[in-house]
Amino acid sequence: MAGNTFGNLFKLVTFGESHGVAIGGVLDGCPSGIELDFEAIQTDLNRRKPGQSKIVTQRKEPDEVEFYSGLFEGKTTGTPIGFAIHNTNQKSHDYSHIKDSYRPSHADYVYDKKYGFRDYRGGGRSSARETASRVVAGAIAKQFLKGIKINAYVSQVGDLKLTKSYKELNLEETELNPVRCPDQEMAAQMEDYIKEIKKEGDTIGGVISCVLQNVPIGLGEPAFDKLHAELGKAMLSINAVKGFEYGSGFNGVTMKGSAHNDQFNSDGSTKTNHSGGIQGGISNGMDIYFNIAFKPVATIIQPYETIDKEGNMVKTQGKGRHDPCVVPRAVPIVEAMAALVLADYTLLNNSMR
Amino acid sequence: MAGNTFGNLFKLVTFGESHGVAIGGVLDGCPSGIELDFEAIQTDLNRRKPGQSKIVTQRKEPDEVEFYSGLFEGKTTGTPIGFAIHNTNQKSHDYSHIKDSYRPSHADYVYDKKYGFRDYRGGGRSSARETASRVVAGAIAKQFLKGIKINAYVSQVGDLKLTKSYKELNLEETELNPVRCPDQEMAAQMEDYIKEIKKEGDTIGGVISCVLQNVPIGLGEPAFDKLHAELGKAMLSINAVKGFEYGSGFNGVTMKGSAHNDQFNSDGSTKTNHSGGIQGGISNGMDIYFNIAFKPVATIIQPYETIDKEGNMVKTQGKGRHDPCVVPRAVPIVEAMAALVLADYTLLNNSMR
Amino acid sequence: MAGNTFGNLFKLVTFGESHGVAIGGVLDGCPSGIELDFEAIQTDLNRRKPGQSKIVTQRKEPDEVEFYSGLFEGKTTGTPIGFAIHNTNQKSHDYSHIKDSYRPSHADYVYDKKYGFRDYRGGGRSSARETASRVVAGAIAKQFLKGIKINAYVSQVGDLKLTKSYKELNLEETELNPVRCPDQEMAAQMEDYIKEIKKEGDTIGGVISCVLQNVPIGLGEPAFDKLHAELGKAMLSINAVKGFEYGSGFNGVTMKGSAHNDQFNSDGSTKTNHSGGIQGGISNGMDIYFNIAFKPVATIIQPYETIDKEGNMVKTQGKGRHDPCVVPRAVPIVEAMAALVLADYTLLNNSMR
Amino acid sequence: MAGNTFGNLFKLVTFGESHGVAIGGVLDGCPSGIELDFEAIQTDLNRRKPGQSKIVTQRKEPDEVEFYSGLFEGKTTGTPIGFAIHNTNQKSHDYSHIKDSYRPSHADYVYDKKYGFRDYRGGGRSSARETASRVVAGAIAKQFLKGIKINAYVSQVGDLKLTKSYKELNLEETELNPVRCPDQEMAAQMEDYIKEIKKEGDTIGGVISCVLQNVPIGLGEPAFDKLHAELGKAMLSINAVKGFEYGSGFNGVTMKGSAHNDQFNSDGSTKTNHSGGIQGGISNGMDIYFNIAFKPVATIIQPYETIDKEGNMVKTQGKGRHDPCVVPRAVPIVEAMAALVLADYTLLNNSMR
Repeated sequence: MAGNTFGNLFKLVTFGESHGVAIGGVLDGCPSGIELDFEAIQTDLNRRKPGQSKIVTQRKEPDEVEFYSGLFEGKTTGTPIGFAIHNTNQKSHDYSHIKDSYRPSHADYVYDKKYGFRDYRGGGRSSARETASRVVAGAIAKQFLKGIKINAYVSQVGDLKLTKSYKELNLEETELNPVRCPDQEMAAQMEDYIKEIKKEGDTIGGVISCVLQNVPIGLGEPAFDKLHAELGKAMLSINAVKGFEYGSGFNGVTMKGSAHNDQFNSDGSTKTNHSGGIQGGISNGMDIYFNIAFKPVATIIQPYETIDKEGNMVKTQGKGRHDPCVVPRAVPIVEAMAALVLADYTLLNNSMR
Repeated sequence: MAGNTFGNLFKLVTFGESHGVAIGGVLDGCPSGIELDFEAIQTDLNRRKPGQSKIVTQRKEPDEVEFYSGLFEGKTTGTPIGFAIHNTNQKSHDYSHIKDSYRPSHADYVYDKKYGFRDYRGGGRSSARETASRVVAGAIAKQFLKGIKINAYVSQVGDLKLTKSYKELNLEETELNPVRCPDQEMAAQMEDYIKEIKKEGDTIGGVISCVLQNVPIGLGEPAFDKLHAELGKAMLSINAVKGFEYGSGFNGVTMKGSAHNDQFNSDGSTKTNHSGGIQGGISNGMDIYFNIAFKPVATIIQPYETIDKEGNMVKTQGKGRHDPCVVPRAVPIVEAMAALVLADYTLLNNSMR
Repeated sequence: MAGNTFGNLFKLVTFGESHGVAIGGVLDGCPSGIELDFEAIQTDLNRRKPGQSKIVTQRKEPDEVEFYSGLFEGKTTGTPIGFAIHNTNQKSHDYSHIKDSYRPSHADYVYDKKYGFRDYRGGGRSSARETASRVVAGAIAKQFLKGIKINAYVSQVGDLKLTKSYKELNLEETELNPVRCPDQEMAAQMEDYIKEIKKEGDTIGGVISCVLQNVPIGLGEPAFDKLHAELGKAMLSINAVKGFEYGSGFNGVTMKGSAHNDQFNSDGSTKTNHSGGIQGGISNGMDIYFNIAFKPVATIIQPYETIDKEGNMVKTQGKGRHDPCVVPRAVPIVEAMAALVLADYTLLNNSMR
Repeated sequence: MAGNTFGNLFKLVTFGESHGVAIGGVLDGCPSGIELDFEAIQTDLNRRKPGQSKIVTQRKEPDEVEFYSGLFEGKTTGTPIGFAIHNTNQKSHDYSHIKDSYRPSHADYVYDKKYGFRDYRGGGRSSARETASRVVAGAIAKQFLKGIKINAYVSQVGDLKLTKSYKELNLEETELNPVRCPDQEMAAQMEDYIKEIKKEGDTIGGVISCVLQNVPIGLGEPAFDKLHAELGKAMLSINAVKGFEYGSGFNGVTMKGSAHNDQFNSDGSTKTNHSGGIQGGISNGMDIYFNIAFKPVATIIQPYETIDKEGNMVKTQGKGRHDPCVVPRAVPIVEAMAALVLADYTLLNNSMR
């Protein structure tokens, strides 16, 4: 299995299972001389970590990252940055309900078929715990991308949908509530709804919107490595994501070209931005914005029927702590993946100079 | 500029500009011993080519592919398959309206900024003509993927939206009309609408849906190279695409986990398929289905104002032939990209055995 | 089969068999704005082509390259450069002596085992004819690498070995004789020897030396992509190569560190250059020099015994035209591969700025 | 800086500096279900580690590897194997002699030029300590490659050269002496010589020979990824290596084709093996053998003059512990790199089936 590496030049490989010794990664290709703000890295990790609020899973993991290499006197050296987050949650749980049977809509079944067996503890490699490593690398990428603003926020939970565009919102207020929705009224409604869902032992989907500002003109490589194609892959690689759209997105299909075309201002900027900051796969200097659809996570605290390895139907019961809605914790992951793409495409673009 | 290569092991590189000598590609990594049906390749090219019906651009290009290598006695040899399609449309057109000014929502502006200058004839490298090379390689991939069924079709044009799922449609009737919508009544409406749009010199967006059947269990690599992430990138790399969703997609966000989870049958198949045939990034043997949003293409046959290289506002007029709606011709491109992904991920999965 | 792609950012894929329709390639990643000297490209092709002198194979192939894309108004556009060289030598030869039996020390046997069958005409993909495509791409790379001097020459044929170092030679005199040895006396001896070998229907090995001058400091990536490691791979990928050494090479093993260490001058240059211009895998601004060992090519015009597909011993006879010594024609191939490595590593190094 | 990743499918990335917190790596792509012998891994690490005998550096490092992921119940799971070796040697040394000046023939100077500054402690990333991570991954690769025999040994130290071929030696006796030369008499001479060199505070070069047996037919990908080209790159990426030759190597250049060609036996094996087990870049089932030249390491315990950052000449003195001859400790590194190449090329070859 390859597949655990992301990026061409600013390249991250991650390792680790949910309940193994540690998760972590190696960031190969980060330029030298970046003075790292380690608190900013930990802040992003804290935004992702379990137990941070009442509407997320109550598991306790400190998620403290240790850096092993690639730094000297507080700065990146240009050599690979190795890091690990030790799992503190390794004690022997009762896994009898997942060891021999397959949880519906989880990766249990396909892992067994593909690899012959699996580390069943807490989902193993297929657990979203893997994304903590992405957050570490993404936080470094953000610091490399000085001047570029990357803001993700929750724009929908179930049917509760923010109708305002990102321009009508104050994205600096995203962190004021545990949902990470910058509209405080909507956030309150979403929070109540998630609590309700949690009481039911159920889960609900949502949408994260993301805006990239001050991206220089010229990032993106035709034909296959268009900037939005790589952003799309990056987002679709996050657990539970079912869809990606940028600029006018799925709504754009109902528009006519005469309305959709973005007319130029004399400085090269455009009067409208249905293109979403990318034309022909290359950034044009306007804001890049996109939406990401998350399905309701599969772990529910309800009884269910499923099959065991031999195909017998078995009755079982979801237990433990779970995330009733994944999007609040996924906001820093989306930002991290966006930062990794921008950092990589910046290096790709630099190479031609 | 890298970026013109797709795939890890079943790997395509394409070359060529709209009005250069030729377009083409090299398919490196196709296994040996596949007896090629050359008619099937040409049939897919014909489905993509201009001039095939009244609702597409009336440009005339025969789009005949010449194979240069990698074949012997009608079979693939395992060595790279080089091929070219000569452009017959190279005569000196009048390009004054695009040589010195930037068409709105085209790649003209960003190419000039990124590369310093551009081949402005017919859009050059950013023209969708490049996708003919993908169709050639995709048609070969289809023949490698014996037994797997790949069917794309038009499911929306502007506001005209097919509400039936692919299961309620006969996908063998897709080619019975020029729109490539398998519902003949809806197809007729769409056709009329596209003709109307064409008369206006305008364009309209649309959605293509695609279904992959009989895909074996186990294709897809965690964590970054999830099968749907690569499919998403593949589709987003097609000209004019603004969005991608698979399985329950953007509708899935309003569902609860208890409803969204796909319960198992005793044979490992699932009773529902909100997952869209992929769990944890790995195919589970159920049908894979996804939607792709296409914006209205930017070339309109109307007067418009834009800027020239110096930033002066200039008035100009779109002219010539254009595609009022790109989705009918994009159907074989979608299938080609899906086939390339499946072929590549089949080889990746084989490598572990 | 992957394996036909070379380079990370300045990336060449080649296609084509010896007696197929055409050979060629796609160069993806060449920066834009390079004004190409097409004569220089053809000159390098002519240095490689058969029939150029009495000591090389007398096959006639004009080896004229057609460019299909990536160029506009004589300059590179930054998009992929597709090119082809049509084979003029496709007429039906008598291949009975190689169709069903395996020539000793050729790739016939392993191709059949690996791919199930092979294009046996003239060696197919395993023919050194493939290297003509490398020469085209390398000639473009040379033009990108303005200011860097790349000079290869023949330094040994059989036991005839040039004992002078490259510093004692005038490398501008390499092309004055058909052997491509810059020492005219030694060249004459080598030429006589090769003619003798040719009369016997036999072949002989040789060594090519190569010097890269004015390479900027900083090319090369630790730990695995050291500059000399990539140069080594590039050279070892050329047909008939059995060895590579740079700087002090195999002779360096007998030296003590106190003698081998290159002492610094105050400007960062070194008093000696046993390091061969590379330290820790990174160019240090001094001359890079290396040697490449070529075995005697396997095609001999003598009777021989071998096996057929069923393992029966058969007697047969080598026929036609052959290269008695491959090194004179391999000189431009060595330069091309060196140029491709330097161009790629220049882009890699640029990316970090 | 990319460059710290090796392999296509069986892919290793390493991280870590000589005197940082830890070194380690991630092995992505190791197939599932391999029952790991952890003692064998530690044994290979011990063969590489400092302090193991009187003829190697007397630094003390236990080099114990911790595995973080990719293993479950003692077997590989198919997910990435993360591992680290903590540096125990981090205490504050006196680095004044290398902090501000550049040691001759080390990477100090080029690192400063390329990256702007460097972790100067013990050589940082350019230290051969990095190769411990390769030994870990290589030891896993060996266990994946069941049935293939990989044996490296010291065949030359300075002028002391083993004239016997590998076939005349008992490779199981390599570990009987600290030099790792399977000829015990020659080993004794080499040991004495190395001790002498050590007393002088000097260093001496050497050659390692390596034999790969029972390699299946078909590994290797034309045209650029020939098996020996990748082996060459792998070996040249090891610290202090200056040359690589396989099969007849540099001696082969003096042979005639009629003598060099390997005649077939009826079972497809060959009567001689000048080809070195590889034809046309693809393994043919015969033994693969090659030689690797190591220069004398640059660290000597003698006074020397060099330059500081400002280009002033400074007098200084090499101190501490050093390896008088690197080849005894490099034997397991050579084997590890060979195993990584074979594992990767096995997966590449499998993918086509």
